[in-house]
Amino acid sequence: MAKRIPTRLYLSEDEIPRNWYNLRADMKDKPDPILHPGTLQPATAADLEAVFCKESVKQELDETTRLIPIPEGLREFYQAYRPAPLIRAYFLEKALGTPAEIYYKHEGTNTSGSHKLNSAAAQTYYAKEEGLTSLTTETGAGQWGSAMAMACAYYDIKLTVYMVKVSSEQKPYRKALIETYGAELIPSPSNTTEAGRGILARNPNTGGSLGCAISEAVETAIKTDKCRYVLGSVMNHVLLHQSIIGQEAKAALDKYGIKPDIIIGCAGGGSNLGGLIAPFMADKINGKSDTRFIAVEPASCPSFTRGRYAYDFGDTAKTTPLLRMCTLGNGFIPSSNHAGGLRYHGMNPILSKLYQDGYLEARSQVQTDVFDAAVQFAKIEGILPAPESSHAIKAAIDEALECKRTGEKKVILFGLTGTGYFDMTAYMSYNAKTMTDSIPTDEDLAKGFASLPDIPQNK
Amino acid sequence: MAKRIPTRLYLSEDEIPRNWYNLRADMKDKPDPILHPGTLQPATAADLEAVFCKESVKQELDETTRLIPIPEGLREFYQAYRPAPLIRAYFLEKALGTPAEIYYKHEGTNTSGSHKLNSAAAQTYYAKEEGLTSLTTETGAGQWGSAMAMACAYYDIKLTVYMVKVSSEQKPYRKALIETYGAELIPSPSNTTEAGRGILARNPNTGGSLGCAISEAVETAIKTDKCRYVLGSVMNHVLLHQSIIGQEAKAALDKYGIKPDIIIGCAGGGSNLGGLIAPFMADKINGKSDTRFIAVEPASCPSFTRGRYAYDFGDTAKTTPLLRMCTLGNGFIPSSNHAGGLRYHGMNPILSKLYQDGYLEARSQVQTDVFDAAVQFAKIEGILPAPESSHAIKAAIDEALECKRTGEKKVILFGLTGTGYFDMTAYMSYNAKTMTDSIPTDEDLAKGFASLPDIPQNK
Repeated sequence: MAKRIPTRLYLSEDEIPRNWYNLRADMKDKPDPILHPGTLQPATAADLEAVFCKESVKQELDETTRLIPIPEGLREFYQAYRPAPLIRAYFLEKALGTPAEIYYKHEGTNTSGSHKLNSAAAQTYYAKEEGLTSLTTETGAGQWGSAMAMACAYYDIKLTVYMVKVSSEQKPYRKALIETYGAELIPSPSNTTEAGRGILARNPNTGGSLGCAISEAVETAIKTDKCRYVLGSVMNHVLLHQSIIGQEAKAALDKYGIKPDIIIGCAGGGSNLGGLIAPFMADKINGKSDTRFIAVEPASCPSFTRGRYAYDFGDTAKTTPLLRMCTLGNGFIPSSNHAGGLRYHGMNPILSKLYQDGYLEARSQVQTDVFDAAVQFAKIEGILPAPESSHAIKAAIDEALECKRTGEKKVILFGLTGTGYFDMTAYMSYNAKTMTDSIPTDEDLAKGFASLPDIPQNK
Repeated sequence: MAKRIPTRLYLSEDEIPRNWYNLRADMKDKPDPILHPGTLQPATAADLEAVFCKESVKQELDETTRLIPIPEGLREFYQAYRPAPLIRAYFLEKALGTPAEIYYKHEGTNTSGSHKLNSAAAQTYYAKEEGLTSLTTETGAGQWGSAMAMACAYYDIKLTVYMVKVSSEQKPYRKALIETYGAELIPSPSNTTEAGRGILARNPNTGGSLGCAISEAVETAIKTDKCRYVLGSVMNHVLLHQSIIGQEAKAALDKYGIKPDIIIGCAGGGSNLGGLIAPFMADKINGKSDTRFIAVEPASCPSFTRGRYAYDFGDTAKTTPLLRMCTLGNGFIPSSNHAGGLRYHGMNPILSKLYQDGYLEARSQVQTDVFDAAVQFAKIEGILPAPESSHAIKAAIDEALECKRTGEKKVILFGLTGTGYFDMTAYMSYNAKTMTDSIPTDEDLAKGFASLPDIPQNK
């Protein structure tokens, strides 16, 4: 008789992956190159190094090295919270009465509460190695800011976090967490940058935006000695760091000979989804598996399911390099949604390309359905999930119920990106039944698309 | 060469303990009996069963059965979050430069955020088995209320939580968590009980107290069909359930042949400390070890270090059975302190007796020193600790630094009872440098002692 699969499929710390998985190496058709916004030519390493750490740039541009070593000094940091548990959802399976096997990779066991720490630690480690003394970044929902604050406390790097002003006011505890770890937190827009001062002059009462916070963080990084800018999603080097999620999940499943039929992740900028699927997708591209991959995005910000595949800016100020991606347009204004980490107009270029080429499915979910699933999961599995992660939970439950209908014993794996302890206002809104679903109209989308750059590559 | 001890000393889920450890079986001198407050005679099972579940009462009065089986149906629930990790604090050891080995048992990995879930699950399981359909309890800081809400959601038992009114206002997210898990939360004092109405009539603007919330929860339990009252600390059956902490810690350490020289826990009502030390203390009593045991309490509520060993009530309304314990008097008003879980006038009778008999040491710490240690730990080990747990961290760091001074390579084990994600106002106060230390004067203590019952047993 086969050995019972445990609730937690642990790896030992010796099994923390030694390499990140660079999915681009397996892709027959690569994502289109990043373009310099001035010349519209492919961006060079030198272009990008004005803003980013050298190693991040090298990884960003590397399309061919399949396995990129994780430095030993970084693996030491990872030992503080990794390997992250892969959990068999026995309780959920039983409650649903499904023949499916459900697994989830739980990335919320660290204090930052999400998978973001994986890339925060990597980028901070490289900054330290490069001899930098400070970093800047922005944060919206706050997960990335918390993760960076933790990493910088450990590696003794000064950190300035531009936090979207309205978010810093609505999430005082996220702000407190970031400050407890010693980072300087500046509500954005601020008077500390030209970009901030300009926005404040035009609109003194603005609550800020992620695009504005990015502009402030980039400006400060460029103007400060031994300082660079880091960001927590969308770009390829961030996906690369997050492939530690997929590497661990695959190693743990392989121990028990388990092959997932369906892999599900929520998708905002795409880093968690891309990281989770990386080694599994490689098998699919290489014809070794026919696993289905499902991206789940909020109906309020549907870059896969209703976006365009086009070159676009990363920020609303239109200052970043251009990425070809599934996008709603940098000027798109997402409706209010508690899954702050998924409210971004664009999607990572690798995932966008895979979606275009039919390797990746996508669906969108409205907020109230997502929270129904979140609360169901919390009561049954005992973990209060982040609003972002709950998008994946919703799809996993739906797929498991479909198995119940058909009698198929499929293996479902999803990414539980984080916990919801700092998202209680969302749960309060759900409990009070004041939560709403807002789906952009075609007119809303048209306004977003009108902001796409008018360049030959977009014709 | 000895195998390197991993950062996390995992047990498999097959190794979830099959028994609780009833420390009283090893004590040569037992704690004094619980007294009926009317007759001043030892309370009988029938006396206690009017309020508590039958199995809890049986365990409360059992002084001789060393190993009490954990039911299989409960062990299944424990699989959702146990075994809890035992962590080698390599990062902290390195940062302190100490030759000591430091370990901590991390009980904060579940959503309720603390060890409280261990007893909440047990008491709810027994209530279900007994055929009860609802339970009542009180909560101050909120950990216990959260844990009970989770357990009752799982076992499908209706739960009413009387939450100290001022606490429900100051901790809206704790309230939201409890409500998300489906419990009815009533700020106390309320109009739902005679006790509450009486207090409100006398003092309409009161923010409530734990003593008042207990009175309301007990009254509702007694007046409701198939309903009993549960509580989360102080009593012996709660300590018994928490012995799962010590049982797991000992099993994990035994695998590597590690014998702790010093075991440290924070102490409010005593359940976590008593649970952590249970099997280790048995060895000390039986002459098999000379481990030191250290209880750490807040200087604002020093029941061990400045209290009296006397019979006292558990609540301020003087309605509960009388326990002989280290107490500041039921009328003692603890100074403001962010470690809400440690603000209780009395201490579990088993621990009180062990302290009297010299088996257990105790020390008190002021709040700002505790938070210095908390933030140091958070930055180094990556886990933001609960204010309560940070009392143990402070003592562990002090003992490790003493080892550095003497060059001794001692093994220190402490209980990390929980995480601080719902205690960010405390960290905000610390970050803003507005946190104060308030130590009761001798006059404050005299007022508390004046509330001790004037009975022959206290002469």
